[in-house]
Amino acid sequence: MNILVINAGSSSVKYQLYDMETEFVLAKGRVERIGMDSSILTHEVNHQPEVREVSEILDHTTAIKKVLDMLTHRKFGVLRNIADIQAVGHRVVHGGETFSRSVLVDAQAKLEIRKLFDLAPLHNPAHMMGIAAVEENLPEVPQAVVFDTAFHQTMPPSSFLYAIPTVLYRKHQIRRYGFHGTSHDYVSKKAAEFLGRPVEELKLVTCHIGNGASCAAILHGESYDTSMGMTPLEGLMMGTRSGDLDPAVVPFTINKEDLTLNEVNSMLNKHSGLLAISGVSSDMREVVDAMNEGHANAKLAFEMYAYRIRKYIGAYVAAMDGVDAIVFTAGVGENSAALRTEVCKGLTFLGVLLDEGRNADRSPEPRRITTDDSRVSVLVVPTNEELLIARDTYRLAKELNQNI
Amino acid sequence: MNILVINAGSSSVKYQLYDMETEFVLAKGRVERIGMDSSILTHEVNHQPEVREVSEILDHTTAIKKVLDMLTHRKFGVLRNIADIQAVGHRVVHGGETFSRSVLVDAQAKLEIRKLFDLAPLHNPAHMMGIAAVEENLPEVPQAVVFDTAFHQTMPPSSFLYAIPTVLYRKHQIRRYGFHGTSHDYVSKKAAEFLGRPVEELKLVTCHIGNGASCAAILHGESYDTSMGMTPLEGLMMGTRSGDLDPAVVPFTINKEDLTLNEVNSMLNKHSGLLAISGVSSDMREVVDAMNEGHANAKLAFEMYAYRIRKYIGAYVAAMDGVDAIVFTAGVGENSAALRTEVCKGLTFLGVLLDEGRNADRSPEPRRITTDDSRVSVLVVPTNEELLIARDTYRLAKELNQNI
Repeated sequence: MNILVINAGSSSVKYQLYDMETEFVLAKGRVERIGMDSSILTHEVNHQPEVREVSEILDHTTAIKKVLDMLTHRKFGVLRNIADIQAVGHRVVHGGETFSRSVLVDAQAKLEIRKLFDLAPLHNPAHMMGIAAVEENLPEVPQAVVFDTAFHQTMPPSSFLYAIPTVLYRKHQIRRYGFHGTSHDYVSKKAAEFLGRPVEELKLVTCHIGNGASCAAILHGESYDTSMGMTPLEGLMMGTRSGDLDPAVVPFTINKEDLTLNEVNSMLNKHSGLLAISGVSSDMREVVDAMNEGHANAKLAFEMYAYRIRKYIGAYVAAMDGVDAIVFTAGVGENSAALRTEVCKGLTFLGVLLDEGRNADRSPEPRRITTDDSRVSVLVVPTNEELLIARDTYRLAKELNQNI
Repeated sequence: MNILVINAGSSSVKYQLYDMETEFVLAKGRVERIGMDSSILTHEVNHQPEVREVSEILDHTTAIKKVLDMLTHRKFGVLRNIADIQAVGHRVVHGGETFSRSVLVDAQAKLEIRKLFDLAPLHNPAHMMGIAAVEENLPEVPQAVVFDTAFHQTMPPSSFLYAIPTVLYRKHQIRRYGFHGTSHDYVSKKAAEFLGRPVEELKLVTCHIGNGASCAAILHGESYDTSMGMTPLEGLMMGTRSGDLDPAVVPFTINKEDLTLNEVNSMLNKHSGLLAISGVSSDMREVVDAMNEGHANAKLAFEMYAYRIRKYIGAYVAAMDGVDAIVFTAGVGENSAALRTEVCKGLTFLGVLLDEGRNADRSPEPRRITTDDSRVSVLVVPTNEELLIARDTYRLAKELNQNI
């Protein structure tokens, strides 16, 4: 069975086509600048050079059409016919309290996703455009939706509630949801596999450190707490997001700088984090390079970034009263040995003993970076959110076929 | 030497008169409802019944006059003459980056405190009214100011900076300051004394849990990090304050509920916390009573409140890479054995072993509530911010006398 995984943004569509018998990525790519003057489709088949096609793509329906054309292209394609796509899986950022698992798209699901537009105004409407675009192009193909929030729906109220008037929760669903759920779910299960123990017996802290970043306390296989909140702004310092902040800073800044609500949101989401403190870049690689060249603010940004991860690890170990393993994943988490060293150097009280040789290794497989006698293991587990979306979609599509 | 300690609010003045040779409180009391139709002065001398006097007190100068009259009152007073007051010490909430220690009041100090009005609009102007009122009534008496923020000025930038555009720090001094510094300072030194070790060798987490609440990481006698931020809103859940919150909730709520900046500040500071979640009270005693009677939301509020303290303890242990002792202080921290149990039950990974008998004890002296073989000690250390203000004032007044 071939599954097409779609991640639709407001002006972009990313895709991966999976053969689910082998879990092999047949092709992947992205459409960018949808609705702008020159849109770009970039397409890649198994280590062959990328194909780039510039054209006018005014909407998501046309974007999906272009993707399907490319997947069945005489020269660059991998499918004979679009009928060879048996199901489509969409990444959806916000599932609110409605979705604690992936579901097939139907009228009810679409209605519920629309109800959540308020909570994820930048993401959910774009995902709906992606769903509608696939519907128009592939009306017979089942679609599934996989939510970034779903895995965290196991959090208890003491983790997910904010200490604000409860009417705001009842009326506007203001609470902690958490994100990167697909990734936290995936790497916690992979970590358990690596450790050779059932995830139901483990206490794990998973650190998804990419351009966005979040930590999660995974207690016995379920999310117990996580650092992102109602939105992906809360928690760790990120590439361009502030993370935690005195809430009083928001009205204070609005007042002092005469900002609109959109401007303050934009400042905290797009002009903060590593970028703001380093003054160099939102990209950890560039910040580390600058630091190594003696740039003082890059060093400060790096230290703050690591310090906050370390504090969240400590908080979640206390939340679960212990930890078996700490897991690093995503772009920065998988690739920055310097960051992992900086985080772990303050965790010797837990019995964490980093092995610098293992830490410097760049294997793409799950691996341990602590010594064999470290009381707590630290692992690097490459994440694969697209694969998890493909798997969920595959499972739901098979169930659908059996029910028919 | 007699020292008068003043804590001036916008419509209240609290006072304590100390004999510094014995550190004995000769008298204490408060003026409430200043500027309202019937002001109340409550005055107490060493376990005698309180004296209450209702009159019209329109400003702080009159309030201080009434206090001085009472202190020298034929029947209820403890001084023959107001000339027996040798110095006055004021609690000042916000010292910004200007004040890292207590100072004598002079023109420069007053100017600097005025510059900080923006950062503490509810507190610093009231403190200045207190200082001016003492000046008018006791023009010859030296005054000192003791700041809630001063002790935390040792925090490194990685602790005190927010990950937001640095122009906001340079232009508006937006950063973490921390509060309850006098208390964190006092109890950390008391704890070291109790443990019989120099504070310079210790890693301590101090938990000041009163109606306001904050944790601090005290590394080798200096504040390394603390949970309150630019304002006292950040950090732990408190009686009526929200503590930590996704910063995006603020603009979201302003928009949804059409609130002004003052209204959202008021909601987060006065209508949140224990009060909002329990629906019962902002007072921990009443929340615990309701919980014990089976009130579900009181139980949830209690659990959230303790859970967040536990997470901060974990975070600060990771910040310092270890901990020698955890210290509880202030109203709730000193008096609620139930809360301490709930916090510590998740700290067995640190080797914390609570002794329930010791925990239930109500001695007013510093004491250990863990077993003798607990790897980390948990202490209850009663705080005394007024005494520390008196001591600082005494020291500064003596130095002044020597310099003359």
